[in-house]
Amino acid sequence: MKQQIPLYLGIDGGGTKCKARLEDAQGNLLGEGLAGPANPVRGLALSQQAVLDSTLMALEQAKLGQGQLPSVNACLGLAGVNVALYANQYKNWRHPFAKLHVMSDLQAACLGAHGNQDGAVIICGTGFNAGAYINGQLTEVGGHGFELGDHASGARLGINAVRRVLEAIDGLCQHSSMTKAITSYTKCSNASALFETYHKATPSQFAALAPIVIQYAKQGDVHAVEIMRTCAAYIDLVVERLQKLCPPRFSMIGGIAEPMFQWLNKASQDALVDPLHSPEEGAILFARNNEH
Amino acid sequence: MKQQIPLYLGIDGGGTKCKARLEDAQGNLLGEGLAGPANPVRGLALSQQAVLDSTLMALEQAKLGQGQLPSVNACLGLAGVNVALYANQYKNWRHPFAKLHVMSDLQAACLGAHGNQDGAVIICGTGFNAGAYINGQLTEVGGHGFELGDHASGARLGINAVRRVLEAIDGLCQHSSMTKAITSYTKCSNASALFETYHKATPSQFAALAPIVIQYAKQGDVHAVEIMRTCAAYIDLVVERLQKLCPPRFSMIGGIAEPMFQWLNKASQDALVDPLHSPEEGAILFARNNEH
Repeated sequence: MKQQIPLYLGIDGGGTKCKARLEDAQGNLLGEGLAGPANPVRGLALSQQAVLDSTLMALEQAKLGQGQLPSVNACLGLAGVNVALYANQYKNWRHPFAKLHVMSDLQAACLGAHGNQDGAVIICGTGFNAGAYINGQLTEVGGHGFELGDHASGARLGINAVRRVLEAIDGLCQHSSMTKAITSYTKCSNASALFETYHKATPSQFAALAPIVIQYAKQGDVHAVEIMRTCAAYIDLVVERLQKLCPPRFSMIGGIAEPMFQWLNKASQDALVDPLHSPEEGAILFARNNEH
Repeated sequence: MKQQIPLYLGIDGGGTKCKARLEDAQGNLLGEGLAGPANPVRGLALSQQAVLDSTLMALEQAKLGQGQLPSVNACLGLAGVNVALYANQYKNWRHPFAKLHVMSDLQAACLGAHGNQDGAVIICGTGFNAGAYINGQLTEVGGHGFELGDHASGARLGINAVRRVLEAIDGLCQHSSMTKAITSYTKCSNASALFETYHKATPSQFAALAPIVIQYAKQGDVHAVEIMRTCAAYIDLVVERLQKLCPPRFSMIGGIAEPMFQWLNKASQDALVDPLHSPEEGAILFARNNEH
């Protein structure tokens, strides 16, 4: 099938997965793709591979081959490239696209959530990031990666759950349904096994435990509830901070956004509205508006 | 100088430094040595090099050469070897000593602190570890390494301080004297620079910031005080847990033990007594008692 150029590609690349969306010149969805982690903090080659894999998957779904890559106007929204080091690494990429824009996942999310208009956004997925674009100015809050930040993220829920299991094993707190569920899921019944499995685990591996925490928090499990409340309190702080900038719209997106919502305070809940579009649609909006 | 064999070597190897103590058969101190990190979790080769470096330094101070190594009865107390994986790695070491015992830093500390008698010990240095030896039985609490545990350690004080600086930069809390001092010490004035310097930093690099936290906590700095209190609350839990085993003696040692003491609750303060000897002396006690 011969496709009329140009094509438009939007990428939303986070710590666990990379989503691609391909549209034609008229804005019709041609195909979508999904690949692995695309955060360059965990490896540039891995990140670029995820971008290409998800793109080729989207092309394939559109019944197009990789021969079409030189017709693609691409915009990547990537976690991690808010750090200058990783943004610079991406600048030197000998990419196969007609044109390439690289922006933070935050900017793509904001463009999508508010339909290319001003607004603020909180992303809580595997990692955490938040910010506001107002009058052309970006204010970023939080993020800073798994080790130093991401205080309200799937990875943080997961590592806090593992820590709580270790504390229960140590006799520093009681076991609960959640610690037992984590023990069962991880197949680690003692501290040494948990250490060997998790002391160098990736954010994705920790985030894989987040659904267990979320599930048991809903049931009132004492440890799960405390972990959710700690994360929610951090989000409340971020909402309060960004509200001072009076964003016209404010959304929270990402894999744990929906289950986190009920744990936020009322002021945060009142501040947040549904996003209009996805981050990958936000990236495509940018590619269209910056074609020439 | 010709030395009468055998010689006795005790090693206390932690996440930041490795201390060696060399004694003769009569218990006279012949020499001491100090080398880099000896925790095998951060690298087996590095750990064994630190053991050898500190040993050769002690031999040199004793005016003995490395030709004496085959006369040395050695006992190493090492952080990390409570994990089976690292203990096994050490078992396969083709070491140069007459005899080699490897034990956890916790066991060496306990033997030293209580003169080869039963007791409990908390080690808070770069990392954290605690436990009790009572009637030949070891009960371990805490530890589990920097990522998953070490909740009251120099490394934890340091990373919490870096996190607080990032939160102040984000406008989520106020700057304080401590955050300004950390900014000045690290020469990182923005989030991106802090991220690049510290997102993959070692426990030692974080622990290097602990003296700043300790200093400002003494002066009542709001962030430093909260960081110290959080660590102290964890130690209080550990003390309470180990007190249930009724240890005849209970000591707290390590680089941040003395400055932490004033932040503990009264029950913890009342429970703790001064150690009798150092961990490296504890290791030597073991080498002497298990010579044949």
